[in-house]
Amino acid sequence: MEACHALVKKGFEITYLPVDRSGQVSAQDLQAAITPQTALVSIMAANNVIGTLQPIAEIGAICRKRGVFFHTDAVQMAGHLSVDVKRDNIDLLSLSGHKFNGPKGVGILFARSEIPLSPLILGGGQEAGLRSGTENVPGIAGLGVASEIAMAEMESEAKRLCKLRDDLINRILADIPGTCLNGHPGKRLPNNVNISFEGIEGEYFTKELSKQGICVSTGSACSSESHEAPYVLLAIGRERELANCSIRLSLGKMTTAEDVNKTVAAICSVAAKIRKQTRVW
Amino acid sequence: MEACHALVKKGFEITYLPVDRSGQVSAQDLQAAITPQTALVSIMAANNVIGTLQPIAEIGAICRKRGVFFHTDAVQMAGHLSVDVKRDNIDLLSLSGHKFNGPKGVGILFARSEIPLSPLILGGGQEAGLRSGTENVPGIAGLGVASEIAMAEMESEAKRLCKLRDDLINRILADIPGTCLNGHPGKRLPNNVNISFEGIEGEYFTKELSKQGICVSTGSACSSESHEAPYVLLAIGRERELANCSIRLSLGKMTTAEDVNKTVAAICSVAAKIRKQTRVW
Repeated sequence: MEACHALVKKGFEITYLPVDRSGQVSAQDLQAAITPQTALVSIMAANNVIGTLQPIAEIGAICRKRGVFFHTDAVQMAGHLSVDVKRDNIDLLSLSGHKFNGPKGVGILFARSEIPLSPLILGGGQEAGLRSGTENVPGIAGLGVASEIAMAEMESEAKRLCKLRDDLINRILADIPGTCLNGHPGKRLPNNVNISFEGIEGEYFTKELSKQGICVSTGSACSSESHEAPYVLLAIGRERELANCSIRLSLGKMTTAEDVNKTVAAICSVAAKIRKQTRVW
Repeated sequence: MEACHALVKKGFEITYLPVDRSGQVSAQDLQAAITPQTALVSIMAANNVIGTLQPIAEIGAICRKRGVFFHTDAVQMAGHLSVDVKRDNIDLLSLSGHKFNGPKGVGILFARSEIPLSPLILGGGQEAGLRSGTENVPGIAGLGVASEIAMAEMESEAKRLCKLRDDLINRILADIPGTCLNGHPGKRLPNNVNISFEGIEGEYFTKELSKQGICVSTGSACSSESHEAPYVLLAIGRERELANCSIRLSLGKMTTAEDVNKTVAAICSVAAKIRKQTRVW
């Protein structure tokens, strides 16, 4: 979004597409929005806040047909679900190592060789002139190994996490009244749970859960220092109050069924305690 | 240099200062070159090719007096010799972790808080909005530890290396005819040796020495894929042919007097062999 704002300042025109209540972009909307002036379509493969997957294969096909470059931010998806730049007609794809157990501070920008790129960082011309400066060798090696492991385990791990994720979602929604899932129930990241709890302010909930050893977040890590309602939740039609009453839980390689049990129990007791304190419920 | 070229394309005017035969910028030249339009002075603390130290304290004092921001690239110097941003009136200073045994791919830009900086990378606003993206945590931690160790050992290590460096230089110059030192004999990095060998092409010399287990380089690592004569050597007045006949040797924490003995012996025998082959000498 910040990159878009910067482009607007430079005189570019950006079209923002709406999303439905599950957070999905419509391929039809995209089709209609492309004009002869369109230089690039950029759509996240999966949303970082609510986990919703986008129809990137459909979008890729449309862009290729219309002769427009397609970039997807696959940071949340890569290493968790299959992404195939050939199959999905993706011209540019970004991913980040630490999202699948690699080191922090290293990522990949895939670009088809015909894409004209210009560097942000100038100097000694490293990385084919695209990113000058001595390469982050330990990070690159770590990302490579993490990719190999993720590729080998992805299918079984996605299956395992989807089961745990759905168990976590279903039990919270069933056990605690006034809760709703944010994002698509099925077309979502295996490791993402995002739920709104009526009357329970997210920041406070996060702090109380942390005392029980349960780490959750509100909104996205990128905006953890701002206290605005997560714009992603507003975009899917959540009212401001409910948007502020959401938490995000992430599952990972180390998460077990026992962790899910403990988490559900902690969330139930902390939510009941907060609601009793605030007497909203 | 690439950053300067890019600024020129954007309409900025750059003044390049000459250097003397040892590679030093003159403080008087700098003083004369500053105009009311000068926004920034940027001068390396120490040159990466020939190791020459610049009079940065003098330059810093001039810039402060004239109200012009002073940036120094201290990548080669930091961790090896004392740099003090307060004492030397430095407004901006860059350094790189791997130059003093830290990890590759991480560095520091010091900037006084009143310096207006704008980010190159936009996004989540990490690092006070100056460099968005998840931080390179392992790199940052490694750089921190490397800095601590370098600070503790710097004085004794610089002394030790200067002795080895001078031994290496003096023995090569004494034992092999048609050699000359590039850069300042005294005001140079403790770990840098750069010598031209008449009639011995640097790239070939490098390959032959590598067979003996001695790794040296020609020019700078940044331009190792180009085969132009090192512009730094041309700038100090070396003729093109002699500039192409130079090698750079770097000393480090692990370098011993025994290594210097072996290196001198290998250089003497390889140089003699090449000169015999090419019959130039």
